[in-house]
Amino acid sequence: MNAENFSPLRYVGDAVEILDQTQLPRTETWLHCDDVEKVAGAIERLSVRGAPAIGVAAAWGLVVGLTSTEGNLSDRFETAWKRLARTRPTAVNLAWALDRGRTVFEAKREQGERAMIDALSAWAEQLQRDDVATNIALARHGAELFGPEDRVLTHCNTGALATAGHGTALGVITTAWQQGRVSSVWVDETRPLLQGARLTTWELDRLEIPYRLIPDSSAGALMASGRVDRIVVGADRIAANGDAANKIGTYTVAVLAHRHNIPFYVAAPLSTVDPMAASGADIPIEERSEDEVRQVFGTAVAPADAPALNLAFDVTPHELIAGIITEAGVLRAPYRESLAAALAGAT
Amino acid sequence: MNAENFSPLRYVGDAVEILDQTQLPRTETWLHCDDVEKVAGAIERLSVRGAPAIGVAAAWGLVVGLTSTEGNLSDRFETAWKRLARTRPTAVNLAWALDRGRTVFEAKREQGERAMIDALSAWAEQLQRDDVATNIALARHGAELFGPEDRVLTHCNTGALATAGHGTALGVITTAWQQGRVSSVWVDETRPLLQGARLTTWELDRLEIPYRLIPDSSAGALMASGRVDRIVVGADRIAANGDAANKIGTYTVAVLAHRHNIPFYVAAPLSTVDPMAASGADIPIEERSEDEVRQVFGTAVAPADAPALNLAFDVTPHELIAGIITEAGVLRAPYRESLAAALAGAT
Repeated sequence: MNAENFSPLRYVGDAVEILDQTQLPRTETWLHCDDVEKVAGAIERLSVRGAPAIGVAAAWGLVVGLTSTEGNLSDRFETAWKRLARTRPTAVNLAWALDRGRTVFEAKREQGERAMIDALSAWAEQLQRDDVATNIALARHGAELFGPEDRVLTHCNTGALATAGHGTALGVITTAWQQGRVSSVWVDETRPLLQGARLTTWELDRLEIPYRLIPDSSAGALMASGRVDRIVVGADRIAANGDAANKIGTYTVAVLAHRHNIPFYVAAPLSTVDPMAASGADIPIEERSEDEVRQVFGTAVAPADAPALNLAFDVTPHELIAGIITEAGVLRAPYRESLAAALAGAT
Repeated sequence: MNAENFSPLRYVGDAVEILDQTQLPRTETWLHCDDVEKVAGAIERLSVRGAPAIGVAAAWGLVVGLTSTEGNLSDRFETAWKRLARTRPTAVNLAWALDRGRTVFEAKREQGERAMIDALSAWAEQLQRDDVATNIALARHGAELFGPEDRVLTHCNTGALATAGHGTALGVITTAWQQGRVSSVWVDETRPLLQGARLTTWELDRLEIPYRLIPDSSAGALMASGRVDRIVVGADRIAANGDAANKIGTYTVAVLAHRHNIPFYVAAPLSTVDPMAASGADIPIEERSEDEVRQVFGTAVAPADAPALNLAFDVTPHELIAGIITEAGVLRAPYRESLAAALAGAT
C-alpha cells in the first residue's frame, strides 16, 4: 500500500463506494452506496469511520442524495442533509462538511439545478483531495517533533482508513517512520470495536512499519517501564480551548503520559476544531449499543443481559496535550489563542 | 448464590474438582483432576485463577500427586511440587502454599507415610477453610471504609471464583453492599481474558448486586465525570514496601484514581505479601501467549500474525494505594512498617 494514495472511499458516478471496515482485517468488501440511506447506514455502523473520512463520506452522501427521484431538488437535498446530520453526534467534521455543502449548493441557485448539482459534486471531489493534502501537510509538520528512533504509542485508528487518505496521527507516524524518526509503534487494541487491533495493524502491515499490538490496559505498564517515547492520537472534535474529544480511552493514555512525562500530541485537521464549543464540556459524547461491549464480532463475552455502558469518546483536557498537529503547523498552548490564529489564517 | 458458601474447587476423595472458568459465563463445567498434571494444566490454562484460589488448588495438587503410582512417596511429592511450582510465576500464594505443604508433609516423616499423607490432606482442607475465613474477615474490615451508597469500580475478578470462597476485593464489595454501603459496581471488562466481563458479572448477577460492565478504557472518563466514589482491587503479590502486582491494567486505574482523588484500595490476604520482594521491581511479571491478545474465544480480532505483547500483570507503586485491606485490618502507609507488623502478628 502506498501511504499517500490509498482511500477508503471513492465516488464512481451516482454512487460512493465505501470499504466496509467492520469486516477488516478478515475481508476487504466495498459497499456500493447508491442512495443516502446506504451512506448514512455505513456511517452509523462504522463501515466508514474516523472524523475526516466521515466528513468526506457525508459530502458524497449529499451528492448521492440528489439522485433520488422523490421530491424536487431542494427537497432531496434537505432530506439527505437531515438524514446524514443525525448519523453521529461527536465528530464535528460531519457537521462542518454538511454546512459547507449547503453553502456550495445554495450559491448556485440562480444558475439553475444543473449548476447546483455540478457544484456540489465538484466540491465533494475537492474535499476528498483537500483532505489528503491536509493530512500530508500535517504529517510533515508533526514528523519534525519525532525521533530519532522513537517508540511511539497510538490509540484507535487514525490512518488512511480514517480519512480520505494518508491519515492524521498514523499519517504523522508513517511520515516520521519514512524519515527514520520512528523505530516501532505500540498499537492500543482500542476496545470495544478494536479499531487498533483490526485496522491500525492492517495498515502498519501494509506499510511494513514494525509494531506490537497491546490491550489498552497495558499502556500504563509500558510507560512505567520506559518503553514509550512519544504518543500521538487523533481527534473527533477540538474545543476552542484545546480540549479534545477522541476515541474512548484517549483520556486515560493522556493521564498516563502526563505522569511519565511523555509528550502527548493530538493530530487533526483544522476542520476538527469547533470554535462554538468553548471547552470539552460542550462536546456531545455519543453513547453506543451495550452489545458492542457484551460481544466481540457477535461472540458473547459477558452474560447476554449484563448491563453495560458504551461511551464512544472521552475528552482530554488541553493541559495534558503537548501540541496539536495541524496542516497549519504544530499549535502550542495557550490553545485558545493558537487555534484562533490558525483558524483565522485558514479561512 | 450464597456469598459465603460458593467455592470454585472441591476435593472429592483422590481428585480435586475445579470449575472451568475459561468456559464461564457460557457453561458451568467441573474438571475432574485426578492427577497432578491435570491440576497443573488447569492452573496454567486459567481454569482456576486468582491468587488465593491458585494457592488452594496447588495444595490439593500436592495431595492428588501422592496418589500417583510412580516412585516412592517422597518422589511423588517432589514431582508434584516441581510441576506445580512452574505453573505461574507471579502469584506468591502458589509458592507460599507449596512451601507450607512441604513443611507439613516433612513434619510427619518420623510417623510414617500414612501420617504424612493424612497431614497433607488435612492441611489442604484447612487451607481451603482458612481462605474463606480470611476473606470474610478482610471483607468486614474493608467494608467499613465504604459508603454510604458508594459507586465502586473494580478490575479483573476477585470474587468467590478467585478464592476458596467469598473473594477478596469483590468480597469486600459484597459485604459492603450487604451493609448498604455500596449502591452499584463498575466492572472493568479486563482484557485480554475478560475476567471482569465473564466472571465478575456472573458473580454479581448471582449476588443480585447492581453493576455496569465497561471497557477498561472507560474508567478514566467515568472518574473524570464524577461517577466513581471508590476503587478496590485484588493483588497477586505485594512487596515488602506495599507495591502490589495485580492484573494488567490495575496500575492504570490507580494512576487515574490518583488524578481524581478517588481512594484506591488493594484487598488481599497476608499470604499475598512477599517479604522477600523489597519492592515491585523484584516481582516477576508473567508474559502470556500473544494469541490471548489476537483472539477472543478463538475468534481473530487482529491479523493472525500481528506481533503482540501480553503482560499478565503490572505493578502499582505503594504511593498510589490508600490502604491494603487484609484479614488483620486495613493497613496504611508506611507499608513497610504496617505490613511487617501484620505479618509478625500472623505467625
